[in-house]
Amino acid sequence: MRTMRRWAAWTAMAATALLMAACAGPQADSRRAELPSWNDGPARQAIVEFVRAVTDRDSPDFVPPQERIAVFDNDGTLWSEQPMYFQALFALDRIKAMAPSHPEWARRQPFKAAIEGDQAALAKAGDAGLLKIVGVTHTGMSADEFTRSVTEWAATARHPRFNQPYTSMTYAPMRELLDYLRARDFKVYIVSGGGVEFMRAWAPQAYDIPPERIIGSSFQTTFETRGGQPQLVSKPKLEFLDDGPGKPVAINRYIGRRPILAFGNSDGDLQMLQWTTAGDGRRFAGLVHHTDAQREWAYDRESKVGRLDKALDEARRRGWTVVDMRTEWNRVYSFEARQ
Amino acid sequence: MRTMRRWAAWTAMAATALLMAACAGPQADSRRAELPSWNDGPARQAIVEFVRAVTDRDSPDFVPPQERIAVFDNDGTLWSEQPMYFQALFALDRIKAMAPSHPEWARRQPFKAAIEGDQAALAKAGDAGLLKIVGVTHTGMSADEFTRSVTEWAATARHPRFNQPYTSMTYAPMRELLDYLRARDFKVYIVSGGGVEFMRAWAPQAYDIPPERIIGSSFQTTFETRGGQPQLVSKPKLEFLDDGPGKPVAINRYIGRRPILAFGNSDGDLQMLQWTTAGDGRRFAGLVHHTDAQREWAYDRESKVGRLDKALDEARRRGWTVVDMRTEWNRVYSFEARQ
Repeated sequence: MRTMRRWAAWTAMAATALLMAACAGPQADSRRAELPSWNDGPARQAIVEFVRAVTDRDSPDFVPPQERIAVFDNDGTLWSEQPMYFQALFALDRIKAMAPSHPEWARRQPFKAAIEGDQAALAKAGDAGLLKIVGVTHTGMSADEFTRSVTEWAATARHPRFNQPYTSMTYAPMRELLDYLRARDFKVYIVSGGGVEFMRAWAPQAYDIPPERIIGSSFQTTFETRGGQPQLVSKPKLEFLDDGPGKPVAINRYIGRRPILAFGNSDGDLQMLQWTTAGDGRRFAGLVHHTDAQREWAYDRESKVGRLDKALDEARRRGWTVVDMRTEWNRVYSFEARQ
Repeated sequence: MRTMRRWAAWTAMAATALLMAACAGPQADSRRAELPSWNDGPARQAIVEFVRAVTDRDSPDFVPPQERIAVFDNDGTLWSEQPMYFQALFALDRIKAMAPSHPEWARRQPFKAAIEGDQAALAKAGDAGLLKIVGVTHTGMSADEFTRSVTEWAATARHPRFNQPYTSMTYAPMRELLDYLRARDFKVYIVSGGGVEFMRAWAPQAYDIPPERIIGSSFQTTFETRGGQPQLVSKPKLEFLDDGPGKPVAINRYIGRRPILAFGNSDGDLQMLQWTTAGDGRRFAGLVHHTDAQREWAYDRESKVGRLDKALDEARRRGWTVVDMRTEWNRVYSFEARQ
């Protein structure tokens, strides 16, 4: 009798569970079909709830489609940035590729160090050295020529640790997030310290973001007529640094509207997050926290690249969404097997 | 018998004519329903033919929608610019509005001249004087405060000649052209020497162009925290002049694609037209030629505002479309009775 009762109770419970699964199933499945690389943790929940609140016509936080501006940092937010910014790795690769036409570089720093991969000498050359390397690899040519050099690099170069093309080192969860937002009429922009011409050569394909929605740092550029053909030629002088306080300035200049959602990963994104959240109505600020040394990298307050210190404190104080990469993403890159 | 024959012939002709009208009617009507303020002259024909060629999938000149970038100058191309740029008239109006809080201006040039409407003294103050006037009326305040001052002006100020709000002095044919292009998936941008913040305060309503598609000149702007609130504050120092060779530089910086259609009205648009037409494939370059002293103004090579000299020569040499306002537009402003 006890057995029968227990059996009946189990049966009833099982039936109820099945029934609940059947009812909840399609909804749960369709929810899981979106943002599948995100675990059902606090970050995913915060994103889904925010997007629901601003897109539901009956919500007090509803935002009309034309005002749904979302801005994303790139390095460390949409793709990796270790052991150094990928644009710097591109510049070093380019030095090697250009070296045969520049025999004098074999004896001149910082080019010698770049060609030989001499990290100590490169570090010693410092920012001035880096600027020289960026100068010869990024400027003095037409926009079309530069774009070709990046496209070629993106198609052939491999990351030293993962041996993957750099464009495969974009974060699957973040690409899903871009899709999720666009499907809900958000206008998605990149706002990055990286060079705008560098990004426009590969990011439109990698993220499905058109060139006019990519904002970045830029070199001084002049309009010149060469051989009867008008050309835009860049000079080795930084015109605009789209980092830190430059980010809200650029957002205002290019977009002319305040974003309702911003995502970054470092102190260079702090002012963009402050500017976004200072707007009226509901806003979302997110930080990717690099906590996964095994699948990606673990770094924050002490890192030379992508330091996350002040912005982490402010995020905790103000309740911004800090994405713990290790626990909230069930995969980082698309080339990983899903866990 | 002759009468009968003639009658029969007339009847047949009339029937044929009616039949032709019935068949051609809807098509002709629908064509005339678009761009109705344009006469069926060479400019309208060139526009319609160009747009057909780049939007017809079977045309060798077909351009996919995402690449249909169209750029328009503003002053003298989309709205009038006489007796001086409307933004300068705004600045002078603002000086008068601000004068009660600045009693010292009653004795200090160029402010005294602006308050008194003393054109000779204003001319004598020259560019340096104008920059002072623009400085105090356009900078030193938050972006929101500046926008409010423009919005208020646009709602109340009247043009000295036509006694109309300035936003009523946009060109009806050009607004129709913007609609015509957008209906065919063009992305329409303003690329103007005017201040970007000034334009964004009224142009989105006037032209149905969102702020992110308005490119202009800009003042140096910094991100500051005032009373705990992050703010963007502009300084009286021009950061970027979006005129002449600056236009293709800005187009590349902001849009990152070369336009397939560009419209201007002055030598300040020449490089934008050169840059547009130097691209591969079919391109359209247009100039509004101010030839109508009665309904608008007549000026070109000798004008201080909107001088059209070199660009007119190059347009004639290269077969660009020069719109003779007097003969090609059957109305200029929407407040006119249609002719």
